[in-house]
Amino acid sequence: MRADVHRFILKEPSDVSGLREAMGKGIVDPGQIVAVIGKTHGNGLVNDYTRGFLTLCLSQLIGGQLGIPAERVAQRIPFVFSGGVEGVLSPHYAVFTVDPDAAVTGQEMSLAIGVAFTPEFGVSDIGGQRQIDLTAEAVEQAMANARIERPKDVHFVQVKGPAFTRGDMVAAAGAGLSAVTDHPGKLMGFGRAASALGVAKALGEISPGQAVASAVLRDFTAYSSVASASAGLEVRANEVIVAGLSSAWSGPLTIAHRRMQDALDIESVTDLARDLRLEAAPQVPAAQVRRIRAAFVKCEAQRDGTIRGRPHTMLDDGDIDQQRHIRAAVGAIVAAVLNDTALFVSGGAEHQGPDGGGIVAVIADKA
Amino acid sequence: MRADVHRFILKEPSDVSGLREAMGKGIVDPGQIVAVIGKTHGNGLVNDYTRGFLTLCLSQLIGGQLGIPAERVAQRIPFVFSGGVEGVLSPHYAVFTVDPDAAVTGQEMSLAIGVAFTPEFGVSDIGGQRQIDLTAEAVEQAMANARIERPKDVHFVQVKGPAFTRGDMVAAAGAGLSAVTDHPGKLMGFGRAASALGVAKALGEISPGQAVASAVLRDFTAYSSVASASAGLEVRANEVIVAGLSSAWSGPLTIAHRRMQDALDIESVTDLARDLRLEAAPQVPAAQVRRIRAAFVKCEAQRDGTIRGRPHTMLDDGDIDQQRHIRAAVGAIVAAVLNDTALFVSGGAEHQGPDGGGIVAVIADKA
Amino acid sequence: MRADVHRFILKEPSDVSGLREAMGKGIVDPGQIVAVIGKTHGNGLVNDYTRGFLTLCLSQLIGGQLGIPAERVAQRIPFVFSGGVEGVLSPHYAVFTVDPDAAVTGQEMSLAIGVAFTPEFGVSDIGGQRQIDLTAEAVEQAMANARIERPKDVHFVQVKGPAFTRGDMVAAAGAGLSAVTDHPGKLMGFGRAASALGVAKALGEISPGQAVASAVLRDFTAYSSVASASAGLEVRANEVIVAGLSSAWSGPLTIAHRRMQDALDIESVTDLARDLRLEAAPQVPAAQVRRIRAAFVKCEAQRDGTIRGRPHTMLDDGDIDQQRHIRAAVGAIVAAVLNDTALFVSGGAEHQGPDGGGIVAVIADKA
Amino acid sequence: MRADVHRFILKEPSDVSGLREAMGKGIVDPGQIVAVIGKTHGNGLVNDYTRGFLTLCLSQLIGGQLGIPAERVAQRIPFVFSGGVEGVLSPHYAVFTVDPDAAVTGQEMSLAIGVAFTPEFGVSDIGGQRQIDLTAEAVEQAMANARIERPKDVHFVQVKGPAFTRGDMVAAAGAGLSAVTDHPGKLMGFGRAASALGVAKALGEISPGQAVASAVLRDFTAYSSVASASAGLEVRANEVIVAGLSSAWSGPLTIAHRRMQDALDIESVTDLARDLRLEAAPQVPAAQVRRIRAAFVKCEAQRDGTIRGRPHTMLDDGDIDQQRHIRAAVGAIVAAVLNDTALFVSGGAEHQGPDGGGIVAVIADKA
Repeated sequence: MRADVHRFILKEPSDVSGLREAMGKGIVDPGQIVAVIGKTHGNGLVNDYTRGFLTLCLSQLIGGQLGIPAERVAQRIPFVFSGGVEGVLSPHYAVFTVDPDAAVTGQEMSLAIGVAFTPEFGVSDIGGQRQIDLTAEAVEQAMANARIERPKDVHFVQVKGPAFTRGDMVAAAGAGLSAVTDHPGKLMGFGRAASALGVAKALGEISPGQAVASAVLRDFTAYSSVASASAGLEVRANEVIVAGLSSAWSGPLTIAHRRMQDALDIESVTDLARDLRLEAAPQVPAAQVRRIRAAFVKCEAQRDGTIRGRPHTMLDDGDIDQQRHIRAAVGAIVAAVLNDTALFVSGGAEHQGPDGGGIVAVIADKA
Repeated sequence: MRADVHRFILKEPSDVSGLREAMGKGIVDPGQIVAVIGKTHGNGLVNDYTRGFLTLCLSQLIGGQLGIPAERVAQRIPFVFSGGVEGVLSPHYAVFTVDPDAAVTGQEMSLAIGVAFTPEFGVSDIGGQRQIDLTAEAVEQAMANARIERPKDVHFVQVKGPAFTRGDMVAAAGAGLSAVTDHPGKLMGFGRAASALGVAKALGEISPGQAVASAVLRDFTAYSSVASASAGLEVRANEVIVAGLSSAWSGPLTIAHRRMQDALDIESVTDLARDLRLEAAPQVPAAQVRRIRAAFVKCEAQRDGTIRGRPHTMLDDGDIDQQRHIRAAVGAIVAAVLNDTALFVSGGAEHQGPDGGGIVAVIADKA
Repeated sequence: MRADVHRFILKEPSDVSGLREAMGKGIVDPGQIVAVIGKTHGNGLVNDYTRGFLTLCLSQLIGGQLGIPAERVAQRIPFVFSGGVEGVLSPHYAVFTVDPDAAVTGQEMSLAIGVAFTPEFGVSDIGGQRQIDLTAEAVEQAMANARIERPKDVHFVQVKGPAFTRGDMVAAAGAGLSAVTDHPGKLMGFGRAASALGVAKALGEISPGQAVASAVLRDFTAYSSVASASAGLEVRANEVIVAGLSSAWSGPLTIAHRRMQDALDIESVTDLARDLRLEAAPQVPAAQVRRIRAAFVKCEAQRDGTIRGRPHTMLDDGDIDQQRHIRAAVGAIVAAVLNDTALFVSGGAEHQGPDGGGIVAVIADKA
Repeated sequence: MRADVHRFILKEPSDVSGLREAMGKGIVDPGQIVAVIGKTHGNGLVNDYTRGFLTLCLSQLIGGQLGIPAERVAQRIPFVFSGGVEGVLSPHYAVFTVDPDAAVTGQEMSLAIGVAFTPEFGVSDIGGQRQIDLTAEAVEQAMANARIERPKDVHFVQVKGPAFTRGDMVAAAGAGLSAVTDHPGKLMGFGRAASALGVAKALGEISPGQAVASAVLRDFTAYSSVASASAGLEVRANEVIVAGLSSAWSGPLTIAHRRMQDALDIESVTDLARDLRLEAAPQVPAAQVRRIRAAFVKCEAQRDGTIRGRPHTMLDDGDIDQQRHIRAAVGAIVAAVLNDTALFVSGGAEHQGPDGGGIVAVIADKA
């Protein structure tokens, strides 16, 4: 097997011209697409419809190529879109492909991709044990699909789970279903948190005793260093994409990751660049930037309202959501080091890295 | 003469406890205060009243110490407050003091500070030749006050000029006065632009033929690399603070600056750190951070909607003002290098550095 | 001919279930659809993609029914979507149909609908004479199509014209094209203004000497009392829908309108209700509400920053755009009288009613 | 005793010129001021500092007149400022005075005002039984102070209680104190809710069994029809102002109130106008408007996401807080009826009127 990643700029949320052209030229085989991850123009909060807009346009494009209905495409391929390209960030999407017939030497590890889905979740599942456990099972399944044998070879796990509007939540309550919160935005946080604990459980980053509903949004010492969880109205199950290294795969790509200790931890980014033999001093030079094929960042505002002892204002702001603040800030730091603005930077890093920190992962051409 | 800078954290816009305590302990002599520059909690746009709130509280505090009315304090000391501490930034204010009796050896250059005010400006002056020319004169006066002889020894010029509400603008129009725009936020931009061209003119950074009203917000090749201009409802004249180096001053402080070519120009920040013998690799280590006494950044969204060839969304966003986006982004990059979040980061960098770029200046203890 | 209007609630911007069901039941004949007007969930500003999302979903639905490509549907049927359902307003869309074969008695006037398109406009046309004049021609054409003979029988003219992103504007400038402003949001205002003057010109509401580019956003005594102009990225021509009364049409529907003198002019709304024999005292009773088939409101913040002598803050607000403020306010007043929240309430009423005022039009079942 | 109310427009949050002038002319006796209630320019959320700014300026002004320190003024006089003047609303403040020596005939009831304070509350008190019970006691005390004998003669109870920043909450947690939520904005809601239940308990609007911590933000059938609760960083105790009618008072003023059933309940407003013999048909004519001396409105977004069966979007909006939406909407409806925009309109009506509804109270000259 051989994995590849193609990244396309998004002029507007319905702009699928990049992939259309690449398929037209034979650069991307639509039948080999296994996942799409991207950042769209919206606010990244409950009322962000740009994620669904791009999902529709891409599934129609790919379905047209494959001769299958768009709905079936979205069932088969996880489309993980996160809204919010604050500051220097640039809207884009990365298309992951797998060639199952590529020859493998077995001597060198290469980028390996695996995908799996949980069953659907309702309002009352979000943030609970069922979401933790089924996510963990899906991660294990995706690892098996990717033929990644050791948890240490997993470098990035993207989970996209369901969000619900106030209307959905009221309907659920009317049907006698309880929810951990009555606030749609907060429910997204519970979903991301439970999903991250599920990843950490599957990879052995935390003990089974920590992977429990009572730890969700409470025990922040329990976290994954490779999980990236998002939520959106446009999905109903947790969609899991595992990226790592495996000698069962061939190809030109590799992947690495680092944990960010806090929002100012620029050294984790330069270290990661060096892990990939990119000379970040502190910025990856233009000549090497083309080796970067995709990058993923999770971040969040430190919960005690400070960073390195000084107060920040992100959690008291009634005009700009904390996620938009922190994406702008950490996204810029990573962009400045990598010399690349088409980054998947996602807020809401509950249990994804330490409190106030997060993760950064990069897929690159081998040096 | 000897200049000093004391920086205090601001828990809320009326929190003057830091300076009060420092004066109580004799660390700051209220009679030696020549300027205060800071970042407050508001949005940094027209309807940001946190700047005025802090101005009132500080002028009352200092006036109480000096035994003069608060109004007279604000006439004598420029209070330059910029709203908007997005992302990792921390609200704070830096108090500049001058001891006129300090001994000077004349052998080494030290931080020199000079202050001057223009006459008051009305709505119809903003963005026009009068604002350019009077600002240039005030810069020259402030340099003379600071005994800085060569323009190349000027490293930072802060100008705070007037802003006007819609009501002010309507009143002016009713009085037969014209304005360059009918939008209060846009008028702030014209004021910053004309102020910056005034600085550039005074320092010989541009030719007199470029320092004309017709260049304002049009000829972006005309800019200053040391100007930082803000606007706010709470002032009516341009208040000018010049900071540079002079052998007529003594003391432990020095200053340096760099131009940022664009929003990703992290190397200008690490270069500046090295200019000051701070080992930024890429982050200034904790042991050296205490040498940083104050830092100033201007930045703006690149006008063509791109950064290094990829689109950004800052100029099309109807929910978050472009200034809030870019402060969050560039502020985080500088904070990550300097290991310091109490930065004066101000958007609206019209003619303050190149289009899409800006400036960064740091006052530090000598190495 | 016979016109009908069907209004559907929109749970999310891609929710076309209402029309799908109505077509499935034979209530709406897809071949008879001549226009769709609605309010979507976005911010109604430049970066509102919910308008385009609904346009895509509806054109695919209707195209599927008609057996033609979605792109051809959008060329044939104007989809006029305005973002922003602030406060009590409810997202929805109204589908206008025309049965060309319906019998007409010629004795009673009924709702008449006509549609026309201008040629496409580029960045440099927006706000200029060409946009005014071609819009006027399109209004005349739409009136002729609707067989409305007298301008006084026109009660509502909806125009949807193009908006452009910063990127579009930079590209145009690069091609040597000039624009009246370099701000995408402001350009939307120029486009609405010129479109409104075009309507006023066609209907004789202003003299030809007032319908000139120099009056755009300057001479606010020049306005139309029936024009409603919007702008969006998703169109490139001005799409014109004229609604009025004509004895060449039959059917159960009628239309009336009133000019709002300012944002507090609730009496214009109760008067309008009474024009339609709805007993608004002050609220239309539940039993009569079903007679309301669609309602259209334009409104804007009074330019001098006051309402009836007291200041408002809408034009100085850096956090919420003035259009969102005024839609919430005027939309609520109209909703409270009509007892109906599925209103098309659109801000940006430049030259659409007097400064600070606007228009309100209602389509209702005849009493 | 005799109560009076003077309302002043606020050009900016520090504009106390209206009261200064009125005191200068002898219209307001500073020694008779018992309370000030107003609306300021900020967002009305956690990071709204305009409330504190006006509090400082007014307490300094009044303190200067009385010859006492500003801090002592704020301890003696409740300053209840609510941020957020969305849509047509106008910033202003109403000064309540009491002349204790005025003659009373005892035949006619007149406006009566009473004030009381609870002890200070910490983070862990907010939303709990202690806040409910101490607020109830303070309401009883304020009624006694006002010599209002029957609960039915109480028409308006304003409570202003503490808010806390994230920093405060972290400090409290560090000191071992628990809180009902870890979100500063949500904590404000708990505080308003508990305060309202305290009012309802004191006035017998609910049974003691309903006035319990377990009902807070849960049992929305428990509410007061006269309570108006706000929260802000600038106070530490609940400040209670009771306004009603009493024959122990004389003077020209009266007060009335109505409960709003939902956000479209315009008839409650016209009914209230008629209670006060204002001819609202539907708008109070200009000649009668001067009789309106102050007006108070509480409102909130209906929790099930609908209004009269149709969806609203206020609770899913990540860009504009629900309180800002609903204030703009309900404020406009009340302003349109009363022909008055200087209204105290406050969101966050938890247990202040029915779910989705609220209250409206008006002080007016007797007819």
